[in-house]
Order: sequence, then structure tokens, then C-alpha cells
Amino acid sequence: MNVDIGTEMYGWCRDLFPINRSLTGDGVRQTLSYLKNILPDLEIREIPSGTPAFDWVVPEEWNVSEAWIADENQNRLIDFKSNNLHLMGYSIPVDEIVEKSELLDHIHTLPSKPNAIPFVTSYYKRQWGFCLSQNQVEALPAGPFRVYIDSTLRPGHMTYGELFIKGASTKEIFLATYVCHPSLANNELSGPAVLTQLAKYLQAKVGLKYSYRILFTVETIGSLYFLSQNLDWLQRNLKAGWVLTCIGDDRAYSYMPTRNGNTVTDRVSRQVLKHLGPKAKEYSWLERGSDERQFNAPGINLPVGSLMRSKYAEYPEYHTSLDDLSVISPNGLAGGFNMMLQAIDILERNGHYRINVLGEPQLGKRGLYPETSTHETFNMVKNQMNVISYLDGELDLLAIAELCEISFEEAYEILQKLKIVGLVAEIQYPLLRARHFSWL
Amino acid sequence: MNVDIGTEMYGWCRDLFPINRSLTGDGVRQTLSYLKNILPDLEIREIPSGTPAFDWVVPEEWNVSEAWIADENQNRLIDFKSNNLHLMGYSIPVDEIVEKSELLDHIHTLPSKPNAIPFVTSYYKRQWGFCLSQNQVEALPAGPFRVYIDSTLRPGHMTYGELFIKGASTKEIFLATYVCHPSLANNELSGPAVLTQLAKYLQAKVGLKYSYRILFTVETIGSLYFLSQNLDWLQRNLKAGWVLTCIGDDRAYSYMPTRNGNTVTDRVSRQVLKHLGPKAKEYSWLERGSDERQFNAPGINLPVGSLMRSKYAEYPEYHTSLDDLSVISPNGLAGGFNMMLQAIDILERNGHYRINVLGEPQLGKRGLYPETSTHETFNMVKNQMNVISYLDGELDLLAIAELCEISFEEAYEILQKLKIVGLVAEIQYPLLRARHFSWL
Amino acid sequence: MNVDIGTEMYGWCRDLFPINRSLTGDGVRQTLSYLKNILPDLEIREIPSGTPAFDWVVPEEWNVSEAWIADENQNRLIDFKSNNLHLMGYSIPVDEIVEKSELLDHIHTLPSKPNAIPFVTSYYKRQWGFCLSQNQVEALPAGPFRVYIDSTLRPGHMTYGELFIKGASTKEIFLATYVCHPSLANNELSGPAVLTQLAKYLQAKVGLKYSYRILFTVETIGSLYFLSQNLDWLQRNLKAGWVLTCIGDDRAYSYMPTRNGNTVTDRVSRQVLKHLGPKAKEYSWLERGSDERQFNAPGINLPVGSLMRSKYAEYPEYHTSLDDLSVISPNGLAGGFNMMLQAIDILERNGHYRINVLGEPQLGKRGLYPETSTHETFNMVKNQMNVISYLDGELDLLAIAELCEISFEEAYEILQKLKIVGLVAEIQYPLLRARHFSWL
Repeated sequence: MNVDIGTEMYGWCRDLFPINRSLTGDGVRQTLSYLKNILPDLEIREIPSGTPAFDWVVPEEWNVSEAWIADENQNRLIDFKSNNLHLMGYSIPVDEIVEKSELLDHIHTLPSKPNAIPFVTSYYKRQWGFCLSQNQVEALPAGPFRVYIDSTLRPGHMTYGELFIKGASTKEIFLATYVCHPSLANNELSGPAVLTQLAKYLQAKVGLKYSYRILFTVETIGSLYFLSQNLDWLQRNLKAGWVLTCIGDDRAYSYMPTRNGNTVTDRVSRQVLKHLGPKAKEYSWLERGSDERQFNAPGINLPVGSLMRSKYAEYPEYHTSLDDLSVISPNGLAGGFNMMLQAIDILERNGHYRINVLGEPQLGKRGLYPETSTHETFNMVKNQMNVISYLDGELDLLAIAELCEISFEEAYEILQKLKIVGLVAEIQYPLLRARHFSWL
Repeated sequence: MNVDIGTEMYGWCRDLFPINRSLTGDGVRQTLSYLKNILPDLEIREIPSGTPAFDWVVPEEWNVSEAWIADENQNRLIDFKSNNLHLMGYSIPVDEIVEKSELLDHIHTLPSKPNAIPFVTSYYKRQWGFCLSQNQVEALPAGPFRVYIDSTLRPGHMTYGELFIKGASTKEIFLATYVCHPSLANNELSGPAVLTQLAKYLQAKVGLKYSYRILFTVETIGSLYFLSQNLDWLQRNLKAGWVLTCIGDDRAYSYMPTRNGNTVTDRVSRQVLKHLGPKAKEYSWLERGSDERQFNAPGINLPVGSLMRSKYAEYPEYHTSLDDLSVISPNGLAGGFNMMLQAIDILERNGHYRINVLGEPQLGKRGLYPETSTHETFNMVKNQMNVISYLDGELDLLAIAELCEISFEEAYEILQKLKIVGLVAEIQYPLLRARHFSWL
Repeated sequence: MNVDIGTEMYGWCRDLFPINRSLTGDGVRQTLSYLKNILPDLEIREIPSGTPAFDWVVPEEWNVSEAWIADENQNRLIDFKSNNLHLMGYSIPVDEIVEKSELLDHIHTLPSKPNAIPFVTSYYKRQWGFCLSQNQVEALPAGPFRVYIDSTLRPGHMTYGELFIKGASTKEIFLATYVCHPSLANNELSGPAVLTQLAKYLQAKVGLKYSYRILFTVETIGSLYFLSQNLDWLQRNLKAGWVLTCIGDDRAYSYMPTRNGNTVTDRVSRQVLKHLGPKAKEYSWLERGSDERQFNAPGINLPVGSLMRSKYAEYPEYHTSLDDLSVISPNGLAGGFNMMLQAIDILERNGHYRINVLGEPQLGKRGLYPETSTHETFNMVKNQMNVISYLDGELDLLAIAELCEISFEEAYEILQKLKIVGLVAEIQYPLLRARHFSWL
């Protein structure tokens, strides 16, 4: 199954790779429309430029028809068509003959990676620019040059997609990713691909405990707009949440914790990482750089972390043209998908459970205890008895697994045996510590 | 004194060793009757079979007249008379001629210890069985055999003993041990012997601060029945408690903490262990296996730990015929008794005390400070001043001793000096943190 | 500036060194009168002997005219005039001819430092005594000797000085030192010198946030009397406080924490020590020995620690005639002054601040964010964003600096930038955790 799922996700990435995405514009619309073909319930929303979002406003819409640098003989030396990273994001239109020195003032390179085109944007200052590899810069002739950008930057809309999957509870799990990056694969087509696959899985799943709110939006302004519309609801109903980003390569598993650092999001993520081996790493809040920044900001304070394969800014191809389809793989995407699946499966099965007898239950009469007690059987039921010893409803099952030094899976298996014989009941949220935030 | 006390306890163990004890039956009655000769105030209670105790019921009563395996020529090869471990506990009556293969289905051995008879019971499934050393099994002839068990298993009573020693406070210290093991010495005649000696000591002691509730019962069902009758009272009045088990050998000192792990029972036990040298060890709650399981179970949650010499399941003779009178010794029992005495002496003298002046008291005018202050005397009163600096009633004396990096004895000696000159008063419980559990 | 300040403080110490100070008497008055010349607002108070102070009373006043030991030929062998440490503090008058053996009963020496005169007092037992170096004792002739002490010990006053510097808040910072030691330099003329310099600085400073209560008093009884008069006010208004003692040598920086160990006094002191390099050390509360004893005593419980250069009892010259003007230096005093200045500057600038937008603020439009986002600029604003992520008013700026792994200075610089553009506001105390003590 994983290979198929991985191959399918990789195919989506390949289809979406050439599109020029940015904070706004038709590239985002095409991307969301492609995803809506897979997820017909995805709602696509258009927010007018100028709409406020806390301290920010939705920017003007940017679209590009053509952009190139040509030499004196009209040979196009650098062309947006060959790689959309060549054009600095939100470049204004221009059509000029410029000397080489003036051109260089508008060119961004990354000398440390001479064959990489850097990813550069200028969302909030109106200017134009091109991004070239260092090798390309060095091959430029003496000039002069014609620079030509046929772009529009004017009032329009910011576009994003939202999908709600209803479970038994009004408590929600929040999952978000970005659709604002141009031709960059791991950061960020892997997030949309894995989240689309996850949404398919959740829509097909029967008996979800939690509801799921899934967001395909643009970084910073998209998340802030969404928060500005839904903050109250989210603060009352969010149980846990993750940003999915850089989740398609095959080199590492990474976690960026919430600011609080001890929410159920963090505890579940750590449990997942624990079983992913030496490639798994938790980073410090001080090293964050994705939209967990907005979801945990002062006054927002939602329990949202980021689960990743190789963390943004920690892999060599990050934010350059080298982050292409060769960085991600079916296997890498499937690994990211499985990591998310494990997190969700733990959340869905976790809970506060209470043994409904006083003292230890008599397991023998329920077939859960060896019939003769010998030296050999002494340790057989140790884990089972350890889990039972904590089942007074105070701690959730995940915390009990940690205390008992066993995996969540083992603890859950024990719980199931106890459930089958009617020994445990889940304590529902309204009765549980009404005084606390729901996500602790 | 210790040698005499140890010799006396060892004598009790020797007298009680041959008796066939189990969850119920005349062996328990004989054992309790023997102890009542030493402790005339011991109340012996008989609880009818079928009486509920939370999730459990008091089982039928089991008694044995005879049990043996004979060969074709009526030679008794294995006889309950020579060692009561030969008969599996709660074996039903049988009188049959069986082939060897059928016999072997009913035989328990411990191949890893070829000369040891294992201790095996079947309290909750009606069946019969014999326990043999591996060497005995290998020496069996070809058969057939006559197996003969003259036992009764029918409605009767479970028997246990309770002793209450009244102190100044209604707050209680709880001490429990087992009388349900057949001919096993460390586990479990050492517990009854040490607890009997401790009860004698407490009855003779003038001015007890706490009341003491002492229980000689049978494992699991005995403790659960007792809890089912007294839970409310215990939850309101228990200050601390210990199970005494495996407390008569001379190899180690061990502690099994409460589930909470930070009750006064735990803190006192750690203080005692600290001064017992490198032989002393605290185990993890995950390794428990005695009735601290019941006393700390979900919904029960009493501050009861276990103090031991070599912990059950951690010494080679455990639960085999090798756990005989050679495993325990007068010296080993005396060491266990002294450990309990230290714990009780700390509890009795511990408390929340408050200096009744503001600022440091003037110790000079009370003869508690050197009259001339010189370079040399600077450190003389350091411990005294350190203890005083914490005497605002917030922490108990044991916690203060730990903060001051001195033993409880040293802290208590300082307290006594301050008491004599009227500088400190104990804060009584009702005034102290009425909001907390009494045992924190 | 530091050299000038250090030289000035050293001059004050040199002027004050010869005066014979004790708990009471004209030496204390001369010292305070000298300081009042520098700090005209210093209020000098006279408290009658016999006045109660919690468990203590103000002692009789002690003054000395002359004191010596002479041989048979009236040669003065030992004279108070040559070193006031020769006379045990609070010695009663005497004029006798004594044999050598009787004389030796009244002589204190320090054999481990044969050329040092020890500092000895007898405040609470009426007796007389002389302090000699071991070398001087060994050079004494066979005797007899005439011992002559012309002292008075009778009802009079205890004298101390208090200075109040008003800031914007009624919350106070408390600074105290001693004026009760005779010719001892580091312990204790360094404290009065540094505190005088600090008072000058604070009086000159515009826009103080806190009020400052400065105390030049005598150890133990002086502090206790002050507390007995002001306890209620101090418990409600003290934000932080330090005893200044042994703060003039050049060998170390030391901190004695409050009993609580986690007050703002402790956190500020640790931040200061952190940037003073490997010479800086925090001691344990168990090693205290100055008036933090009184300020933290049971029932008093004020957030007062001690900042020092070489801690009392930890440097070889302590409490002997070797603690003379060669132990302190302009540089050592300036170092102590600067340490205090840093502590106060942190306190004055610390506070609970809140970002007044939801979500991350848009720093770009305020000139606080690079205009183009590239691979290179990614980490540029990391510290700024980290500080912002914690600015929800929950933690004070000092705690945020520690979480962000930057110095308080760096955090404050970031805060200033945010303040200038109107993004943060300080949360005033009355709104802040009214339920807590002010000093947490």
C-alpha cells in the first residue's frame, strides 16, 4: 500500500511542480483546483486584497505572463519560462535597457551554491528582481541588457482551501500546509501532497473520534487571516494540531514543538518520533520558522507543532532550485504520511480511562490472568498490571504508557482487552478537568 | 537486645514453619492462634466464603488431610507430609490410578533449580496438582501411579487477625503482613514474626503519637476484604503504612515505594534506607508484586509501601522449597525489625514545627549560642541555625533535615534543644493545610 | 569613571578605617556623620538601649577611652590605640594587676595565623578580654601585668542611618550594609563605601521606576529593630533587596541567595553573575552568615540576598587584623559598585510586557524586518522573533531572555525597538497576578 500511496503523492507533486505559486494569483488557484479534483469537498475561498488580518492586510494579487533578461541581440539569457525561481516573487513590471551594473543591483545569487538559483521574494516592498545561479551571473556578457517583466500587481484576491471532516466530537484536530511556493518540491509540494492523502484517508475512515480541520493556505498572511476569523472557536475546540511541511524527502524525521512544549500535540509527536529510530529529532522552539509561529504567537497560543522529514533550513537544497523533484521520493512521502497517520491514530485512541472496580480487578475470572501462579508466570502479566495500576482517570493512556515504559501500542492493546471484558470506561471531556484548557 | 529479639523471632518462625497455610483453612487458624498467644489483644476474624470484596469474593475453604503419589507397590514416592509444597495449593481431592504421562500433566517443576520444589497454587480454577523438584521427576519409575489427595474445598471461612493500638491521634499508621504461605520462611514467616515483635514493642511504648492498625491477613483477597470494609476511614485517617514481607534474611534492605512516590511513607523510608548503607535499594513501582498493589490501586490510593530485606522475586530461593529456615536468621530478622523501628521512630517524632518569634531567636540568652563570637565558633552553630531558618511550619522536620543536609536524628536533636527553651511549637494537623490529604 | 569612583570609595574607607565601631557608641556615630557629609539626606536615628526588637533588645551603649596591657615597669605591651582589634568588643572596665595565667584566660589568639589579631566580641555576656596575635602572646614576659580598660557600658543608644529615594512606584528596592565593625576593611568598610556611592548614583538618576530604601545599620540587632518597625510595609512593598558586604576586594564575585531561592532578587543576581566570568560563584543558603539571615527568617521571608566580592568566611584575612586596607582596592570597590549597578539596571528595566497585536506583528512595515527574504536573511531576525514569541505578559523580560538564550541586554535592546514603534506595553503591577507576592 505504502508504495502505491507514495507513488500517487509523487505524481501529484510532479503535476504541480511547474506552476508558479506565490502568496496570491492564478498559480495558487490552479493548485487548489487540482487538489479539489482529488478532494471534491475542499472549499476554495477568495479573500479580497486589503482585508485586514490582525496586524496585517491581504496583499495585492500578483500574476506573471512573461519575464526574461535578453542581451543586445535579443537572445533571452534568463527566462522565467525555464524556471519560475528566476523571477523574484512579487516583482513589478519593467521593460528597460540597463547597463550591467544596474542589472546586478537587481540580481540575487547564492555564491556558496554556484549552480543553485535562490528563492527570493519581496512581498511588501514594490521592486523587481531576478534570481540567478552564481554560474549564470558569471556567464553574463558585458551588456547592456533588456529586462522585461510582464507582471500585474493590483487589487485582487488571496485564495486558500479549507476542508472539514466531521467526527463524533466537536473537538478538532487541525492540519495545515502551504500552497505559496513556486517550483520547490520538498518545501512545499510535499506538505500539500501528504495532507491531501491524509484527508482522503480521514474521509474514508469510519468512527472518527475527533473532527478534522484541514487548511491549504499561504504562509503567514494566510494563516493569520484564518486565525483572525476563527480564533475564538479554535481556542475553545482545538485538541491538537500540526503544520505539515518539508515532509517528502527520505533523510530524517523532525519535530518542531509548540511554544508551551508540553501539550498533547508534543507528547503524541514525541511518542511517534521515539519509534522512528535514530533519524528522528526534536528541535528547539528557538529554531522555528514555519507557521507554528502564528499558531503559537502571543494571544493565539494554540497547540500546533510541525512534523517534518528534513526540517526547513536544515537541508542543503532548502529555498533553492535544487529543491526539485529529485529531493522528494515516493518512499519519502510515504514515510511522512505514515508518521502523520501514527500521530492521528494515537490521538484517536488516546483518552482518560478509569477502571470501574475498586482495588485490582480479578482478571482470572475474565480470562486475563494465568490460571496457576508459578515462578515463571510471575512476570507475564507485569505490563498489564502496571497499566491497570494507573487507570484511575487522572492520566491519559499515552502518559500511562510512558510511566510503564512501554509503547502506546502495547498500552492500547492492554486497554482493549480490559474494554472487551467491560473493566474500563472512557471519561468524557466535559467531566474531565473542566478547569483546564482542552489541549493539556 | 537485638540478638535476643532476633532469636525470639527466629523461634516463632521455626514453630510456624511446618504448618500448611493457604488463603483459608486450619493452617491459617493455627498460625493466628499461635500469634494470639504472644499478642492476646489480636482479634481473629472469620469471613464466610462468598463474601464480596470489591471485584472479588472470599473463596471456599481448603483443608488437607493427606496427599501422596505411590508406585504400583504402594510405596509412597512423594508425600505432602514430608513437605507441604508438594501439593499444589487448593488442589481438589483425587484417588486414581494414572499412567505416567497423565501424572506428568499434573506435575509442576522448576528445571532451572533441579533440587527445588516450586510453590504453586490454583486458587481460582478447580484442579489438582503436585510440585516436585526436577530431580524427583527424573527419578520417577515408569508407572502407573496411584495419586491420592484427601482434601476438602467447600464453603467455610477466610481467617485473619487485626490488632489496634491506640495513640494520642486518630491518625493511623498501618502495618500489614501475610499468613497465607505454606512452609516458606522469608516469604512469608519473616513478616509475621517481625510484625509480632513490632506490635509487642508498640503496645509497651508510652506516649505514642499515632494509632497503629496491624493486620495479619492473606494476600490479595484478605487485603481487598479489609479495604472494602474500611476504605473511607483509611482514606481519611491513614498517615503512612507499610507491608512487611521478605524481611528476615541478611543480604539486603529494600523498599517498594507507593504509587504516588512522594508520600511521607516514601520520604521516611528513604531516610531509613539512607543510613543502612550500600545494601539498601529502592525499587520502581513497576516491579511491585505484593499487597502494595491493592493499597495503591486506582480508587484506593493509600500511602502504603513495602519495606523488605531481599525483595520478593529478587533472591534465588524465592517461591521454592529452598526458602526454608536457613534463608532467614536471628540477625536478619533483627535487622528487619530495626529498620521498621527506625521508620516508626522518625514518623512519631516528625511534624510541622514553628519558631514562635519573628526573626532569628536570640539563642545566647537561652544558652544555645557560644558567648564569644570568634573565627572558630563561626561554624559551630551552623546546623542549628540552618534548621531554625526553615522552621516556619511549612515543611516537616524530615524535609528540613534533607534541605539542611543532616540526618533526621541531628535535626531532631536540634529541635529538642529549641523545645526545651520554649522556642518551637508543633502545628497540629487540623490547622495544617486542611485542604490537603493527610499523608502528604 | 570607574577609576575615579573606585579611588573616591577607597578614600572613604581609608578615612573611616581607624574608627572603633561596634554595635553602639560614638564610633558608629562618627561613621554615620562622615557618610551624612556625602549623603546629606541620610537620616540618623538613635534607638534607646532596652528597646525591644522581636526576640531581642537594643543593648547598652559601649564606649572606650583607653585600653592596654602593661608590664611591671609600666611599659605598655599591648595598646588599643595601636589597633582597636586588641580590645574584645563590649569589654567592661578593669584596672588590675594580674598574674600571667590569669591574663591568658582573658586573651584570644588565632594560632593558625600567628601574626593576625582576631576580631572577637562579647555583646551579651559582661566580661573583658584582649585579642593578640599568637606572636605577641609568645613574646609576653613572665608577668605580673597591669590590665587597664577605661570603657563605659551603660544605657544609651543604638545608632543607624536610613535614606529613602523616591521613584515612580511605591514598590521598593532594599539595600543594606553594616557600620558595626572596627578596623576591618573588606568586612566592613567596603559595604558602606559602595552603598554610599550607589546612593549618590541613584539620587542623581532621573526617572527611577522603583523607590530605594537604603540602610546603614549594625548587624543582627540593627536589622531586627528595623524589621520590627517596618515588617508589614516591607512584606507588601519589597520588590527585591540585597545586603552589601565584603564587596571591595578583587578576587571573586559571590552571591548568597534568598531562602526561597527563586525570587526576582535571585534571578537578577544570577543574570549579573553570569556575565562576570569564572570568578563568579553562587553559594548555598546553608552557608549564609550575614543579615540575609534576618531578612529571610521564618515569619519575615523577604526577598533579600547578598552580593559580595570574596564571600565572608571564605577569604584568609576574614575577621582578623589582616583584613586591612591592603585587602581592598579602588579597582575591587569599583567592581563591586558595577555589579550592584548592573543588578539595579536590570531590575529597573525588567517588567512584564505584552505585544499589543494578535499573531506575529508585521515588522516589515515598521522597518524592523529585512525587505527581501532570502536564504541569508533567514536567521537575521531570529532573536527578535524569539523574544516576540514570548511577549504575552506571562513572563518578565529577564525570564524571556533566559528562554531565548540571550543576555538581558540583548533582550532589552529588542524590546526598545518594539517600544519605539508602539508594539509593546508594560503591564502594570496592580493588574499583574494580584494573587501573588510582589516579588515573584
